[in-house]
Amino acid sequence: MIARLLISCADGPGIVAAVSSFLAARGANILSSDQHTTDPSGGRFFMRMVVRLADGEDDGGAALERDFAAAVGTPLGMTWRISYPARRKRVAILVSREEHCLLDLLWRARRDELEADVVRVISNHPDAAADVASFGVPFAHVPVPAGAKEEAEERLLELVDGCDLVVLARYMQILSGGFLDRLAVPVINIHHSFLPAFVGAEPYRQARERGVKIIGATAHYVTEALDAGPIIEQDVVRVSHRDDVEALARIGRDVERTVLARAVDAHLQDRTIIDGSTTVVF
Amino acid sequence: MIARLLISCADGPGIVAAVSSFLAARGANILSSDQHTTDPSGGRFFMRMVVRLADGEDDGGAALERDFAAAVGTPLGMTWRISYPARRKRVAILVSREEHCLLDLLWRARRDELEADVVRVISNHPDAAADVASFGVPFAHVPVPAGAKEEAEERLLELVDGCDLVVLARYMQILSGGFLDRLAVPVINIHHSFLPAFVGAEPYRQARERGVKIIGATAHYVTEALDAGPIIEQDVVRVSHRDDVEALARIGRDVERTVLARAVDAHLQDRTIIDGSTTVVF
Amino acid sequence: MIARLLISCADGPGIVAAVSSFLAARGANILSSDQHTTDPSGGRFFMRMVVRLADGEDDGGAALERDFAAAVGTPLGMTWRISYPARRKRVAILVSREEHCLLDLLWRARRDELEADVVRVISNHPDAAADVASFGVPFAHVPVPAGAKEEAEERLLELVDGCDLVVLARYMQILSGGFLDRLAVPVINIHHSFLPAFVGAEPYRQARERGVKIIGATAHYVTEALDAGPIIEQDVVRVSHRDDVEALARIGRDVERTVLARAVDAHLQDRTIIDGSTTVVF
Amino acid sequence: MIARLLISCADGPGIVAAVSSFLAARGANILSSDQHTTDPSGGRFFMRMVVRLADGEDDGGAALERDFAAAVGTPLGMTWRISYPARRKRVAILVSREEHCLLDLLWRARRDELEADVVRVISNHPDAAADVASFGVPFAHVPVPAGAKEEAEERLLELVDGCDLVVLARYMQILSGGFLDRLAVPVINIHHSFLPAFVGAEPYRQARERGVKIIGATAHYVTEALDAGPIIEQDVVRVSHRDDVEALARIGRDVERTVLARAVDAHLQDRTIIDGSTTVVF
Repeated sequence: MIARLLISCADGPGIVAAVSSFLAARGANILSSDQHTTDPSGGRFFMRMVVRLADGEDDGGAALERDFAAAVGTPLGMTWRISYPARRKRVAILVSREEHCLLDLLWRARRDELEADVVRVISNHPDAAADVASFGVPFAHVPVPAGAKEEAEERLLELVDGCDLVVLARYMQILSGGFLDRLAVPVINIHHSFLPAFVGAEPYRQARERGVKIIGATAHYVTEALDAGPIIEQDVVRVSHRDDVEALARIGRDVERTVLARAVDAHLQDRTIIDGSTTVVF
Repeated sequence: MIARLLISCADGPGIVAAVSSFLAARGANILSSDQHTTDPSGGRFFMRMVVRLADGEDDGGAALERDFAAAVGTPLGMTWRISYPARRKRVAILVSREEHCLLDLLWRARRDELEADVVRVISNHPDAAADVASFGVPFAHVPVPAGAKEEAEERLLELVDGCDLVVLARYMQILSGGFLDRLAVPVINIHHSFLPAFVGAEPYRQARERGVKIIGATAHYVTEALDAGPIIEQDVVRVSHRDDVEALARIGRDVERTVLARAVDAHLQDRTIIDGSTTVVF
Repeated sequence: MIARLLISCADGPGIVAAVSSFLAARGANILSSDQHTTDPSGGRFFMRMVVRLADGEDDGGAALERDFAAAVGTPLGMTWRISYPARRKRVAILVSREEHCLLDLLWRARRDELEADVVRVISNHPDAAADVASFGVPFAHVPVPAGAKEEAEERLLELVDGCDLVVLARYMQILSGGFLDRLAVPVINIHHSFLPAFVGAEPYRQARERGVKIIGATAHYVTEALDAGPIIEQDVVRVSHRDDVEALARIGRDVERTVLARAVDAHLQDRTIIDGSTTVVF
Repeated sequence: MIARLLISCADGPGIVAAVSSFLAARGANILSSDQHTTDPSGGRFFMRMVVRLADGEDDGGAALERDFAAAVGTPLGMTWRISYPARRKRVAILVSREEHCLLDLLWRARRDELEADVVRVISNHPDAAADVASFGVPFAHVPVPAGAKEEAEERLLELVDGCDLVVLARYMQILSGGFLDRLAVPVINIHHSFLPAFVGAEPYRQARERGVKIIGATAHYVTEALDAGPIIEQDVVRVSHRDDVEALARIGRDVERTVLARAVDAHLQDRTIIDGSTTVVF
């Protein structure tokens, strides 16, 4: 069985040795390892290890996690988690009218490029129903009428219950802090600008007005502050004075869907660790 | 003789025909032509033409310009100018301590990549004197002591007198609106971020704190509003959580010098026309 | 009515004036114009103009084309054509098993991003039938058994009859020279490498073996020589030692579909003119 | 004291644990670690670790290396080396007429961006003498007359004696296999194309003739086979039909110098391990 170990803690000598000796003693082989230290003196330490567990570890990780906590995690004051690729994550996708990011994720999921099952698509518009149905994924229409956001969020909470990740694939409603708290799983959003440029509405119009020569897209974890969550991935594309707002939006769509897909992929592969208002992406 | 014609005016039928017929009747051959219309109905029209004038046009363009005004420019309400590559532009470069953009421009000028003569380098620090001297360019040290900005700007005005372009190659002083008015020639600045992200001081520190995955640089015409002038050129480079502020600054230097050089080159080749708060770059 | 005029001819004085005066006399307004000269002395001249014809030009262009030939095209020895966006081009797409480029084109067509109608999809495998049906496009399965290529190409010729463009969206069969001759419309192919690197089969395996740090894709017009036709568009993406052949293929798919879409879009907008073994793309 | 440990060996369980336990027992703190396995079953394992040695390790590493060999390196059949940033590498640069890569490396060295001392510049042309002198670096002119390559290479060997790295910064002579053997230190070359496209002479002319839309540069370790050594770094830039061979060369220079600088920097930081005909770059 393959396991992935993600760790963050105060930096100090012996962390890698403690972890790798624990794993070696247990017969686990380290397949890959990435680490990062924000500052060699007094900084924070981050590590991602992929290991092949010994054949005996057949209880789904319970013993491993208990022993790791006792021997390494707790003594060294670590924040850590272990995940198992064999347990595919369950993903819900929220979308409004623009369907390019949604379709791209569904295509990738069908092609088995994503390490997850898309278990539900939810939209505040009915438009995407037929597309989603053709992928055999359940679709739910949850309108958000003016003044009835609370009820809509209740309905959303029911529908995404049991999911490990919620992806906002151009979902144009702002989710309340209360919703995010109760949801309690990560939410990834795609913003159609190179953040922190052009926060908020109509970023392509803002970009046109400012006359930028490059536009971009940003995938980030959602926090209550609008467009301010930790950035996972960004990319850009060159534009010119010839591109009006519609052209920018069309060109931007290609960047949006690619950036969102990369960010979702990085999250699903447990390559991301949040570090305050930023992310470490291994 | 080669001439470049830059035009902007209200769009309408017959503009290209009027200009090209005027030129054909005069024996001028159009070597290249670019045009742009912001909106086919009621928009603004921009054009850049490079022409080889007939042999008779040997008075340096005076007759050409007078006749063009009478026959085309004034009747069609154009804003226009004609420039001649044979009359090399005179450029002054202002710099503070970071010398990478300055050296890059001096080196390009020496290689004859820039269609201009660098006639003077001015700095508020003495550090670059030897480097500049090795390129055979006059150097002036104009310190800007606290409270004596006005005197410094007076001295700058004297030193750049007769220049056609002033380039701020990491000049870390803010020029006053009064200075810009009296200067009356274009000023190009390089800002070390992808504007409008990270306006103002220490953009690499801001970038690190926001956790962006891409950094950039922006070359723009200077206006009185800080970092808000029309953008000429931008470019970016990918970074990661491994890059601290110093690494971002080091990586960013390569983008800064390239972006500034491209913008200066575009200006010197008369490829830029300002359109409100943006630029058309042909 | 909007018309697009594409011209190539030996360069010389007065070409732009001749064309624009012809158009002005006819009441046509030039909306945009691009031109290119390979060499100011004795080179070749290329031009693309988009014009709004006068209201009287209501016979679909027949008079315009006859008059242009007589007044400008023939006297100046031009190769030229006029196309009309209102007459949407008819496109056939050929595909094998990899469906990412196909799906991307179908989706763009549905979004009305492509100035064309996809009238048929043909594959040597039946796999894509359901996907294509969901876009409401006719699908034909034309297997190419060993030794029966000639019959298959006969069938293809029948099926693409009346099309203006054939797109090979990861079609893994080599088309014979005879087929291309009889087809007599342009064919655009996507090759999954940055040509001319890695011509032929398994370019991602070749790329892995050579240890390149960047992979790419190339869209080109198809000629009889394998992977040697005039290049329309290319793009690249950074990879590393961590990416094995399968990862390169997965990463490459995103570039392939984008490059192919851009090339097809440029062709459909009549932005491409073939110049020997290369293309001018305005 | 900081040390860098580079390892390659057959993959298998316990490697990281063996190394990190050895280091932990010695009081060394792992500051960063990268690893790569070509194939989890039966592949090859590569690792780079940066460690802070305990205060007692004050003999310059001799004891460390002896003990590591005995306890880890030899038992596990590793190819390994330890380097120490405090011992700056000595670099010789060879150049012909194009000076942009040379100047860029000298600028970076002066700005202390490179972890090395440039101890000598050698050219088969005298042109760069004054530039090099202004950096306080010894310059040697070693012409390579037809038929006298052997003598020239003898002279080069004397001049680079004691260097840790030789950089070919647009040195247009081919070095013989015998020279490379006797030199016995790594040689990094910059090739002015995106290899393996356009091997050999005049790559920009080849690129123009093929009509590529992107050009690039490749930095690689030099082997006897022309332009076939392991690639360290590549980058590209977009071009168009407007760019003739001279323009491609001018645009390409910016990529060449940046790519070479990145490759040299990676080598100097001991981030590169050669793996057959490719490189792992951590």
